[in-house]
Amino acid sequence: MRPLATDLGAAPLIVLTRPQMGENIGAAARAMLNFGLEHMRLVAPRDGWPNPSATAMASGAGYVLENAGVFEDVAGAVADCDYVYATTARGRGLVKPVLTPEAAMEEARAMIAAGKRVAVLFGPERAGLENDDVAHANAIITVPVNPGFYSLNLAQCVLLTAYEWMRQGSNAAGVRLELAGTDLASQIEIEKLGDHFEEKLEDTGFFFPPEKAPHMKLNLRNMLGRWGMTRSEVQTLHGILRQLVRPRR
Amino acid sequence: MRPLATDLGAAPLIVLTRPQMGENIGAAARAMLNFGLEHMRLVAPRDGWPNPSATAMASGAGYVLENAGVFEDVAGAVADCDYVYATTARGRGLVKPVLTPEAAMEEARAMIAAGKRVAVLFGPERAGLENDDVAHANAIITVPVNPGFYSLNLAQCVLLTAYEWMRQGSNAAGVRLELAGTDLASQIEIEKLGDHFEEKLEDTGFFFPPEKAPHMKLNLRNMLGRWGMTRSEVQTLHGILRQLVRPRR
Repeated sequence: MRPLATDLGAAPLIVLTRPQMGENIGAAARAMLNFGLEHMRLVAPRDGWPNPSATAMASGAGYVLENAGVFEDVAGAVADCDYVYATTARGRGLVKPVLTPEAAMEEARAMIAAGKRVAVLFGPERAGLENDDVAHANAIITVPVNPGFYSLNLAQCVLLTAYEWMRQGSNAAGVRLELAGTDLASQIEIEKLGDHFEEKLEDTGFFFPPEKAPHMKLNLRNMLGRWGMTRSEVQTLHGILRQLVRPRR
Repeated sequence: MRPLATDLGAAPLIVLTRPQMGENIGAAARAMLNFGLEHMRLVAPRDGWPNPSATAMASGAGYVLENAGVFEDVAGAVADCDYVYATTARGRGLVKPVLTPEAAMEEARAMIAAGKRVAVLFGPERAGLENDDVAHANAIITVPVNPGFYSLNLAQCVLLTAYEWMRQGSNAAGVRLELAGTDLASQIEIEKLGDHFEEKLEDTGFFFPPEKAPHMKLNLRNMLGRWGMTRSEVQTLHGILRQLVRPRR
């Protein structure tokens, strides 16, 4: 049994309540691990435990299943937790805060940073959590879907929750430039390319009539500067310029 | 063929490039519709089109498939689009901005608000997009996953992109209180409940020793105020108080 990389309290525990199909348990483990969640708990899995269908589906996330705790009821599964969310698709007639996954994972991060242990309950595939299960939770998570169409399956619900957990903890920039082994051209390289363009275009009489030339040159320089060219793109354009004005045989 | 509710330019188009299994096309349609995306385009689906397996899987999202455009190549599928994203799992050795789904959908919302038509390309199930496909895109979307584990399938990639689209457009509050037909208690109701507690507890000699009584009462009031009780919960506590002090037979 491969040990888990993270402490029990370092991220939300995922509690699958009375899951039916082993395949869905395995798919939930994969969904979790995509976004760094490793701690799974199972409440009364229908087909017993361990479950070969779950293991087969989990593939590289098999160690999440091997480490999963199995409990008889929800109360036992969350007994050592400080704060519990229940995921439901719709209102349950219980007085509770209802959060989006986004707001819940923001709150969960704050609680976990304060040393609290957080769990998220997911219900069985078809029926979802019963009110007796939801009563064990401090708050509800409901994914804000198209009101005219809801078809999220168990692994997809786990996936969206885990995604929000990682998204909010990520320090990664939202946008980065893939440079593929080259580098952005420096300003002086752009400037020299502009000089080269002007020189070759002057030769061809491009800047006509003369009173419009300054504006045409400004536009040219602006365009070259705005593209964010790489060093190799600048070299390519130099080569193209030379080639285009080469006398034809 | 049921018409689509949204205009072609109102949300990103989802372009599935050389998809293999019909089931995955159907699952992608469902993933889209969960978060309000209706416009699908298909590039050279392996098993032809229409595909009964896709229809069977799509269930309530079948009209997304019925309205899907089918194209021979990526160039044709995005010819009428102003801005194209390509989803890839890893760097492709091409100079392009790489965005998270979050940053990409923020940018897409801005472009769509400015009247631009945006498309998102997804590759075939196993291999993903080829560099020739990616070259048609202005930018890359890469989901920031656990660097040690990647197992997102086609429908899950579509789901996360569609989720980000809807999440960023939602005006819904991240947290709301489900009140289940009752209402929060007013401050005067909380105050009267505190009076009732104090009265009954005084009778039982709870506030002892006398010098600690003010602090004990303060804690009691603070606790009752902090719970955010509903009107019916206040009534329940009044009833409990009365019942507990009733002379036993």
